Amino acid sequence: MYETFNSPLLDNAVAQLSKLPGIGRKTALRLALHLLRQEDSVATEIGQALIDMRQHITYCQECHNISEQPVCPICSDTRRDHKILCVVETIKDVITLEATHQHRGLYHVIGGVISPIDGIGPSDLEIESLVRRVERDGIEEVILALNPTIEGDTTNFYIYRKLEHLPVKVTMLARGLSIGNELEYTDELTLGRSLQNRVLFSATFHDQ
Amino acid sequence: MYETFNSPLLDNAVAQLSKLPGIGRKTALRLALHLLRQEDSVATEIGQALIDMRQHITYCQECHNISEQPVCPICSDTRRDHKILCVVETIKDVITLEATHQHRGLYHVIGGVISPIDGIGPSDLEIESLVRRVERDGIEEVILALNPTIEGDTTNFYIYRKLEHLPVKVTMLARGLSIGNELEYTDELTLGRSLQNRVLFSATFHDQ
Repeated sequence: MYETFNSPLLDNAVAQLSKLPGIGRKTALRLALHLLRQEDSVATEIGQALIDMRQHITYCQECHNISEQPVCPICSDTRRDHKILCVVETIKDVITLEATHQHRGLYHVIGGVISPIDGIGPSDLEIESLVRRVERDGIEEVILALNPTIEGDTTNFYIYRKLEHLPVKVTMLARGLSIGNELEYTDELTLGRSLQNRVLFSATFHDQ
Repeated sequence: MYETFNSPLLDNAVAQLSKLPGIGRKTALRLALHLLRQEDSVATEIGQALIDMRQHITYCQECHNISEQPVCPICSDTRRDHKILCVVETIKDVITLEATHQHRGLYHVIGGVISPIDGIGPSDLEIESLVRRVERDGIEEVILALNPTIEGDTTNFYIYRKLEHLPVKVTMLARGLSIGNELEYTDELTLGRSLQNRVLFSATFHDQ
């Protein structure tokens, strides 16, 4: 049994904050006591922001990214290329890719990867909806941007087979040396792949 | 300017969580996305706990510890010794000392230490109220339990001078070797102090 702090309200705040990943009871207590030392508004604004976020954020019915409307701002942006879909595992990946400013198409968040060990099969992911979307909207290119793991590759292959019969180009993110990495410290698989997929120097130079 | 996440609600939740000490924007985003993946109730309960805590927790009018009533549970506990006051810097110190289960008296939280560099003088601390309390309640012992720092020692001395003329015993926490520490790695000041304040072996043995 945990010790209490002579205040059920503080006990509760600490218990609740401890539910957050990576935050133990000591950190939770430190955060709670910090909030008690601040203006009233600080704790109230943080608390209200969490409640509002969870209650009003929903998922885009098109791409399954988070959204505050039925269709998210990316999917409703007419300046973006609606014929290119980038397939990612999670919402976080959308944020990461958007930060590169290199993708002008739309996204499709499938919600994970096929992983029999974790009991996740194709039907648990938004793959059927991806296929329907490709057919319905006449998508011209699907960019597979899943994580470079065994499960990611399995899922890439599964999606590829599902799209094979459709008139859509299926591409995937290039794998190779990380910019700034040294050859000596690059793992063999990555190095081998970057050798297989070598590109003409002029093209590389041009792309940069 | 920070990038946004295509959702003002998520942007706001991340901005608010980033206000917490030790939580940067990356961690805040990770926490927010975690909450979005959980049941609605998780974010709502955390948020509400913070709001409730901040709005309803106040300070004990006697000892200045946090409290949900005008007088805190420790000060209203008739089983505790109301003639002994333990003087501490912060609320956190009350929690830490309570966890030892060794103090059966009450507390007095002065709210910090005298520190001219930080612009904190005696009048910024709850020292006058301590003196009044000692006089009014006929306190028999004041245990100084401030942190063993230069500022803590200065404040101890200031409080001692304020209480000198009253019929109260003023004691302070023993300083010496930490249990489990090795002599070789103990700093000279602590080791010197533990030599000056050496106690009869039988007493030590008995106290443990």
